[in-house]
Amino acid sequence: MNDKILAADNKVMKRIFSIDTLTYQDGALSTKVKEMLGLVSSMVLRCDDCIKYHLEKCHEEGVTNDEMFEIFSVANLVGGTIVIPHTRRAVEYWEELTTSKQE
Amino acid sequence: MNDKILAADNKVMKRIFSIDTLTYQDGALSTKVKEMLGLVSSMVLRCDDCIKYHLEKCHEEGVTNDEMFEIFSVANLVGGTIVIPHTRRAVEYWEELTTSKQE
Amino acid sequence: MNDKILAADNKVMKRIFSIDTLTYQDGALSTKVKEMLGLVSSMVLRCDDCIKYHLEKCHEEGVTNDEMFEIFSVANLVGGTIVIPHTRRAVEYWEELTTSKQE
Amino acid sequence: MNDKILAADNKVMKRIFSIDTLTYQDGALSTKVKEMLGLVSSMVLRCDDCIKYHLEKCHEEGVTNDEMFEIFSVANLVGGTIVIPHTRRAVEYWEELTTSKQE
Amino acid sequence: MNDKILAADNKVMKRIFSIDTLTYQDGALSTKVKEMLGLVSSMVLRCDDCIKYHLEKCHEEGVTNDEMFEIFSVANLVGGTIVIPHTRRAVEYWEELTTSKQE
Amino acid sequence: MNDKILAADNKVMKRIFSIDTLTYQDGALSTKVKEMLGLVSSMVLRCDDCIKYHLEKCHEEGVTNDEMFEIFSVANLVGGTIVIPHTRRAVEYWEELTTSKQE
Repeated sequence: MNDKILAADNKVMKRIFSIDTLTYQDGALSTKVKEMLGLVSSMVLRCDDCIKYHLEKCHEEGVTNDEMFEIFSVANLVGGTIVIPHTRRAVEYWEELTTSKQE
Repeated sequence: MNDKILAADNKVMKRIFSIDTLTYQDGALSTKVKEMLGLVSSMVLRCDDCIKYHLEKCHEEGVTNDEMFEIFSVANLVGGTIVIPHTRRAVEYWEELTTSKQE
Repeated sequence: MNDKILAADNKVMKRIFSIDTLTYQDGALSTKVKEMLGLVSSMVLRCDDCIKYHLEKCHEEGVTNDEMFEIFSVANLVGGTIVIPHTRRAVEYWEELTTSKQE
Repeated sequence: MNDKILAADNKVMKRIFSIDTLTYQDGALSTKVKEMLGLVSSMVLRCDDCIKYHLEKCHEEGVTNDEMFEIFSVANLVGGTIVIPHTRRAVEYWEELTTSKQE
Repeated sequence: MNDKILAADNKVMKRIFSIDTLTYQDGALSTKVKEMLGLVSSMVLRCDDCIKYHLEKCHEEGVTNDEMFEIFSVANLVGGTIVIPHTRRAVEYWEELTTSKQE
Repeated sequence: MNDKILAADNKVMKRIFSIDTLTYQDGALSTKVKEMLGLVSSMVLRCDDCIKYHLEKCHEEGVTNDEMFEIFSVANLVGGTIVIPHTRRAVEYWEELTTSKQE
């Protein structure tokens, strides 16, 4: 679907996508930490699709199960119980990712 | 799904769940009023799962149909028309709850 | 300042103000309960001016100190620690209101 | 479903619906511009149902494809990448609307 | 203060600022309409500094008083009464801008 | 002011404060990383007081200037330009913190 957004050839949208790539690259902070920052932001803003995306990236970066639940903790503390349903779905997806990894 | 969150044995998440139980207990305010407060908060923050949960609790606490629509009114006034789609789903679920009750 | 908004003679703005008055009138729910609903909504949406307004109304409706802190509890639980700074200012204003009452 | 909300005969809800109609009528600003304002607001507040509604209205008002992507640009710039998943769904629905139009 | 952000020489921040400029340029939609879109977005997201910025731009683009209040209407309808305090401050600033213009 | 909240002797509020302390302790993730998570969450939720608090903690944890601007980048990308005014104030406060440190 991002293809469709890009196909429209709108300069602003294209640049936003390109900054998105730039932002998470290794720098003073590692991609791993940045993806954790992206994840917690997506959780407190309660965007399920964004959460899924960053869960995948965190998984690729080798975030462990205990680390992940500490990210969930910060998100639920700062964002409140309103974040719980999103955490439920995040746990479910995280389990899928980490289970398929072990195979 | 809450079981999975709790199974991870993360202290912070566990304590948040236990405070959640504590918060809605009868105190200076009745559980009924507190559940109405929880519902209206969930509506203005637009969390459908949270709304469903508090609708069930409000139903158990004997909130009437007219009271419920006055809660919806406050939510839509304070939160704006952006709350309407969530109100639609809330009305639908409330109807299910109250219809099954009458049987 | 509301006078300036109304002076502009914009129909929509005028009607929103008049619905606002209507919403909090005694009905199936008392004005007291509705003001508590308005307050908790303002807290989770983190609008200091709205919080102040509803604190005044709650005070007029005879909300007690213990009741008020239970409203604060729901707001901080549902809305997260992001609500704490607003709670601080609310406590401060609530104290002013309740202290001046006792005189 | 709006019928069900209205059927409950709650004065506040009825008036909110009637103001909603009033707000988007031609005035100093055209309905077209107002629908664009409603759309961008729905996007930054991330309400998919509201977005769909305003996409339909924008389509009726003759908003072009290039204009639509400029609205998407403002929404994604102001609201951040958190708006991207909603933009994806908006693009998909917009395509449906504009394709069926051409037939 | 933007100078300080830019002085830090962070690529992502610099690009976000440059996209910001690009987004509001005349295109399929005029700068005037885009600034109105930026304003209404800032209002429903309740960012006073952003509102001030777009009020200035709208003023430069020749938005009239009646048009402005119709933007306020959409913002208050969609975003709810939580937007009222921000509207108050917006009206006050708009008055300053339009009064100084007439001189 | 937290003293006043705690003085009210409300169990829920007390426990929220105690979880807050627990959440940011060294665990699978270091306090440093957790404070960065708390900061970025506060930025996208646009809470200036919370931002200040986490800036202080990040400073104590030895977050460097380049790292800090990468956190700002993620916040502004994910949260949008609506975060810019909060970033401005954050940069200002960060400068105060880091300048006084060097003395």
